[in-house]
Amino acid sequence: MSERYIRGIEIAERLAPEKLDQFATSRVAELAPDFARMAIEFPLGDLYARDGLDLRSREIVAIASLAALGNAGPQLRNHIRAAATVGLTKAEIIEILMQTAIYAGFPAALNALSSCHDLLTDECPRQAARRVAGQG
Amino acid sequence: MSERYIRGIEIAERLAPEKLDQFATSRVAELAPDFARMAIEFPLGDLYARDGLDLRSREIVAIASLAALGNAGPQLRNHIRAAATVGLTKAEIIEILMQTAIYAGFPAALNALSSCHDLLTDECPRQAARRVAGQG
Amino acid sequence: MSERYIRGIEIAERLAPEKLDQFATSRVAELAPDFARMAIEFPLGDLYARDGLDLRSREIVAIASLAALGNAGPQLRNHIRAAATVGLTKAEIIEILMQTAIYAGFPAALNALSSCHDLLTDECPRQAARRVAGQG
Amino acid sequence: MSERYIRGIEIAERLAPEKLDQFATSRVAELAPDFARMAIEFPLGDLYARDGLDLRSREIVAIASLAALGNAGPQLRNHIRAAATVGLTKAEIIEILMQTAIYAGFPAALNALSSCHDLLTDECPRQAARRVAGQG
Amino acid sequence: MSERYIRGIEIAERLAPEKLDQFATSRVAELAPDFARMAIEFPLGDLYARDGLDLRSREIVAIASLAALGNAGPQLRNHIRAAATVGLTKAEIIEILMQTAIYAGFPAALNALSSCHDLLTDECPRQAARRVAGQG
Amino acid sequence: MSERYIRGIEIAERLAPEKLDQFATSRVAELAPDFARMAIEFPLGDLYARDGLDLRSREIVAIASLAALGNAGPQLRNHIRAAATVGLTKAEIIEILMQTAIYAGFPAALNALSSCHDLLTDECPRQAARRVAGQG
Repeated sequence: MSERYIRGIEIAERLAPEKLDQFATSRVAELAPDFARMAIEFPLGDLYARDGLDLRSREIVAIASLAALGNAGPQLRNHIRAAATVGLTKAEIIEILMQTAIYAGFPAALNALSSCHDLLTDECPRQAARRVAGQG
Repeated sequence: MSERYIRGIEIAERLAPEKLDQFATSRVAELAPDFARMAIEFPLGDLYARDGLDLRSREIVAIASLAALGNAGPQLRNHIRAAATVGLTKAEIIEILMQTAIYAGFPAALNALSSCHDLLTDECPRQAARRVAGQG
Repeated sequence: MSERYIRGIEIAERLAPEKLDQFATSRVAELAPDFARMAIEFPLGDLYARDGLDLRSREIVAIASLAALGNAGPQLRNHIRAAATVGLTKAEIIEILMQTAIYAGFPAALNALSSCHDLLTDECPRQAARRVAGQG
Repeated sequence: MSERYIRGIEIAERLAPEKLDQFATSRVAELAPDFARMAIEFPLGDLYARDGLDLRSREIVAIASLAALGNAGPQLRNHIRAAATVGLTKAEIIEILMQTAIYAGFPAALNALSSCHDLLTDECPRQAARRVAGQG
Repeated sequence: MSERYIRGIEIAERLAPEKLDQFATSRVAELAPDFARMAIEFPLGDLYARDGLDLRSREIVAIASLAALGNAGPQLRNHIRAAATVGLTKAEIIEILMQTAIYAGFPAALNALSSCHDLLTDECPRQAARRVAGQG
Repeated sequence: MSERYIRGIEIAERLAPEKLDQFATSRVAELAPDFARMAIEFPLGDLYARDGLDLRSREIVAIASLAALGNAGPQLRNHIRAAATVGLTKAEIIEILMQTAIYAGFPAALNALSSCHDLLTDECPRQAARRVAGQG
């Protein structure tokens, strides 16, 4: 295991501790274990681990880039979770997604908000369950 | 003049005071004055003016989105200037652009850095002039 | 309620009267009611409401832009419905989607046609039901 | 020469008669004469030549798609010229470009307007010359 | 039937013989039979049929372009099947998808690998069934 | 210097020996020397250096991805040079660029061919000089 990988895993644990196991057994890791390793080493071990920008700012970069590109649903969801872990509030994340409408258009912003609705709502789980059941 | 426009102009002055006049006489304003107005009202008057996210974070959103999209050169340059005005250091802006390589690829990040080199270098103007003249 | 909002809602009613309620209770409106309002005010209240271009032409702009971008499925569906409401025939909408292959490639055009098949077919509902049930 | 090519050339002459010669001697035709031929046959001979949509509507499709994609400068310029030839007014073309801000963001719309300013302004040539010379 | 169509169908049979019927009855062919024909004539009859590049190389072009664009799922799947038919190994196809991370970012490469996992794994069907059933 | 960097530089020398010095003194290296190093380590040291795909195929991946994305001019030019170095003929590179029209549209393919015309023509330098001088 490279130092870069170890450094990357440390970052991954700070961003989303509960996701690590899932990633390790994911479909990409099964097909291309070296690429799954590189996807830790370069983004997290090389870039996120650098001192020049705090993790909160790095998660703003991630969410804004991914929402603007508009075709990276799973990554956007992961980084919205990570952003909450490093201290961004749901209200701030919603503001970030709204702002991407300026640069990438309304559909990009609306679809990002809509597809991550469950991660951004303040609704308590019981309410959500009722709503899905059509009783809300 | 709408309240939204006035609010937008106030933001514009905080982000890039010296650019306002230039904008007002720009080619877009000449062709489509209503659209030049809307480009203040919606992005600045409606979104930037909101309380939910500080201007430093908003400029990170702008730079990351624009670099990831990769075809918005003039806007990227304006927001790199604005980011410096609201307190991001050049080193931080460089980190943001580097990080977009993760999401949008190396060419997007390399071309953003290269095309904004003059705004991000610490070189003093005399050195730059010498270098261009081939003496450096 | 701003004048822009009222003007936008009037346009929305002309484009897709039966969709308004659904929008008002949508997941975006729940998370970000201000953004749901802005998504009426700016696109419809500011732009669609202008005199300079008829609604039929505006719906051609919407469908062509959204099909070319290729990652705005829900919006493409809404505007295909709206286009039919303001007088474009299904055959014309199919021509528009075919033409986007020139500018954005075959996959963009094929996937737009395929994902909106149900909105563009002339099949009567009973036939469609049979086909889905494997009897057609 | 295929029928499709002849049909395509007829369309090209209706859209932009003065551009045909220039195209025939262009850099693409020099490198890849078969592709220059295909670029007439498929877009113009196969699609534009069809009866299902009038040329005015087809030019709206072209301008909206190209402005939304944001990286097809030369083609956007050609189709803005063609749009004027088939009867769209400059004011209508400006409305189309403004509207693309909804779907593709403000930079796409602003840069399309700015880069085609010379084709869309009503300024007479003498005024333009004065303005460039700094006397206007 | 045009010569181009016949030539295109011959290529289609070499690339993916078992897919032809399915295509002919697809939703696009139902809505827009002329466009389904063009989607054989131009890509396959005009370009793939040319001598200048072998089919193995053409499938590398297809997979790399489609993975980089990131919003053409069905076409990427078809061309991964075709690539295997013309002699690319699964390991080579995985390398191609990994490499697109350089140009289009990690999400494009990861999502391409993940969404085509079933086409690229060497797992025997019995193992796959067990894994899905949660017994593996 | 990491092993990955040394491995990457060896690849860079095989792809484009004469470009290395230029890169080392480029504007990106000046602003962000760590990123210039990473742009060797990850793309070349990690991916290109792998055994699973020959360099000729890797250059097809590069050219197809970059032409399809359509906003990476300098990288497309570098990889067209590299492709010629590892054995692709100019005629094959032209076929690759033509084929990207299928997936990314005609403008992407036409602009790639046009912007790399000087690298792909067989014209001898003297002819080119005459043509530029208006004598050809």
